[in-house]
Amino acid sequence: MSYGYKIYVAEVEMETGYVQIYTGNGKGKTTAALGLSLRAICAGKKVYIGQFIKGMDYAELKAMDYLPGLVIKQYGRDCFIKNKPTKEDIEMAEAGLREIKQIIDSEEYDVVVLDEINVSLFFNLIKLEDVIEIVKSKPKAIELVLTGRYVPDELIEIADLVTEMKEIKHYYNEGVEARSGIEF
Amino acid sequence: MSYGYKIYVAEVEMETGYVQIYTGNGKGKTTAALGLSLRAICAGKKVYIGQFIKGMDYAELKAMDYLPGLVIKQYGRDCFIKNKPTKEDIEMAEAGLREIKQIIDSEEYDVVVLDEINVSLFFNLIKLEDVIEIVKSKPKAIELVLTGRYVPDELIEIADLVTEMKEIKHYYNEGVEARSGIEF
Repeated sequence: MSYGYKIYVAEVEMETGYVQIYTGNGKGKTTAALGLSLRAICAGKKVYIGQFIKGMDYAELKAMDYLPGLVIKQYGRDCFIKNKPTKEDIEMAEAGLREIKQIIDSEEYDVVVLDEINVSLFFNLIKLEDVIEIVKSKPKAIELVLTGRYVPDELIEIADLVTEMKEIKHYYNEGVEARSGIEF
Repeated sequence: MSYGYKIYVAEVEMETGYVQIYTGNGKGKTTAALGLSLRAICAGKKVYIGQFIKGMDYAELKAMDYLPGLVIKQYGRDCFIKNKPTKEDIEMAEAGLREIKQIIDSEEYDVVVLDEINVSLFFNLIKLEDVIEIVKSKPKAIELVLTGRYVPDELIEIADLVTEMKEIKHYYNEGVEARSGIEF
């Protein structure tokens, strides 16, 4: 009987990880994923951030020096995609998605962020069915965070939480350029 | 002549700090402010986060142990305000706002976050004119970040960037409770 009781306790204590999406045209999507990662690290969790499309020297990469249990890896080139993605863009994103799938399945990290994954889908760098498969087959305890504008409806459907960051006012429109330490 | 030239260089190198607002009913407002703070610290900046209303033991307080140049201080009690704020709620928020004003004027920090300031205004803990005065009189280089739902139009008007976090789907509606390391 006491054995059975123990099993029961183990079951209720197992945390459920959810699927969160941050999308929309406003500032704050990757930023929220970073904040969520910081909070998770503070609670003793391990976090893996895979940044799709991005390959630039972002200030946030330095966060790995400060936060134990945080890994950030970039799966993009050091420039933005203009108009049409190259073969290299596609290969890097596909390889990134394969690695992310392994990272999730390994259950080594509590939170896995797929940063700008929605934009990768928008540019057809990766296949929607592959991302859906990753979301649907994730180990129960792992929290997945997907960011980027243009999230497809199929992902909203299977997510637990979706926030749209809506631009009400943005200083880019006033000619202010992106600033290191604030936007990247 | 060379003295005059030096002054000119100092002027163009002086950064302009902006006023950012994160509002709306969706998840990600305080979280974005945390992410922005992390990024700023990574870029060598100093950050002060004043949390209004909040006085609970949030995981994010531990961030101070990891991030050099980060200070988080709470100006609230260790419970949420239900219906009507108490005299103590008002006194703590007012004292917080006075301290924040000094922090900003001291120019010791590059980024100052007024977390949940909009909710403090909504509950009439502080006066709108005092917040407007702080925003309008801030030293040029300092970045101000205001968070919380129910932002008044008067603050949108004088802000440089406003993002509305809009709830598209939220697991709280499915009965999921706030989790340490994810929501707080």
